[in-house]
Amino acid sequence: MPDSLKNLIDSFQNFPGIGEKTAERMAFSILNFDDEKFSLLQEYLNLVKKEIHSCKCCNSLTDRELCSICESDMRDKNTICVVEDSKIVFLFEKLGTYNGLYHVINGLISPLDDVNPEDIGLDKLLNRIKKENIKEVILAFKPSVEGEITALYIKKILDGMDILVTRLASGVPIGADMEYIDALTLERALEDRKEVS
Amino acid sequence: MPDSLKNLIDSFQNFPGIGEKTAERMAFSILNFDDEKFSLLQEYLNLVKKEIHSCKCCNSLTDRELCSICESDMRDKNTICVVEDSKIVFLFEKLGTYNGLYHVINGLISPLDDVNPEDIGLDKLLNRIKKENIKEVILAFKPSVEGEITALYIKKILDGMDILVTRLASGVPIGADMEYIDALTLERALEDRKEVS
Repeated sequence: MPDSLKNLIDSFQNFPGIGEKTAERMAFSILNFDDEKFSLLQEYLNLVKKEIHSCKCCNSLTDRELCSICESDMRDKNTICVVEDSKIVFLFEKLGTYNGLYHVINGLISPLDDVNPEDIGLDKLLNRIKKENIKEVILAFKPSVEGEITALYIKKILDGMDILVTRLASGVPIGADMEYIDALTLERALEDRKEVS
Repeated sequence: MPDSLKNLIDSFQNFPGIGEKTAERMAFSILNFDDEKFSLLQEYLNLVKKEIHSCKCCNSLTDRELCSICESDMRDKNTICVVEDSKIVFLFEKLGTYNGLYHVINGLISPLDDVNPEDIGLDKLLNRIKKENIKEVILAFKPSVEGEITALYIKKILDGMDILVTRLASGVPIGADMEYIDALTLERALEDRKEVS
């Protein structure tokens, strides 16, 4: 196989979720891209690499100083949803039902991986909560040991301030087969059961 | 979501096998590529687009006038394996057990899609077979109606020349569960059964 093709296949495998077979198909398909499609791909790659950075206020991704959510006058400025990754912001925005603000922290506390509270930018979150008129903090971390530790830590540092701290409900996902639900999820779903109304 | 990010996600979905979710993950991961990784990706994309083209003789992909297989003195110049797509050449080369030449035709004859014998470059194949000292033509098309039609057509145009025309064996794939084999494959496997030796 020509070197450039081999190198491109290797390069594509740097993307998450792209294995050898998919990388090969992608590299071969480049040969069928017309000039416009190809130069647009190149242009967008460059633009994303050059323009996209963290919002000064909430850390989510933007091509301006402040992201469109922080700048908007239409959002509920009293509620802040804390997420572990800027991708999650776009997931929530796709729903279209949440109207508050966001704050992206830099991952989750994980003592085993030597990630401590001071590593994930909680001071910036705390400063923001103190300065702005926040009434509710929603912790939208994944349900895992790290998510739990981080949630408890944030709850603790907000203690004494008049702020409601909530987290996402855990339970059986909609559409799931009961027999495939893991024990922990089932336990949590039972514990948090709701009255049928 | 910023426009450039949205555009890059759309652009990634031009690749075969890349859906929205994977395209999103890929676009976000670009932000974590260091400068070297990013510029290598750009360079390889450009090189592939600029340098890779069809071999003058066999149509497989190369960055020179003739591909390394056509140029090699080590290959068996009497056997030619005809494939429907240049990707298939690399599949066979990975095996490392085939030592003959290749010829890539431009797809398979498909009357339903209005692809006729003259559309897939069979004249070039025929010229080559006449000029070179070919003793066996192996037809390595996928087992489908189109593969069958194309194989029969090539067999017909080679009729009267002293050339062995063979095709790949069809049958039960190694490791497959018998109960999941489709009826046609099973029928072919039964028909082409071999004596246990």
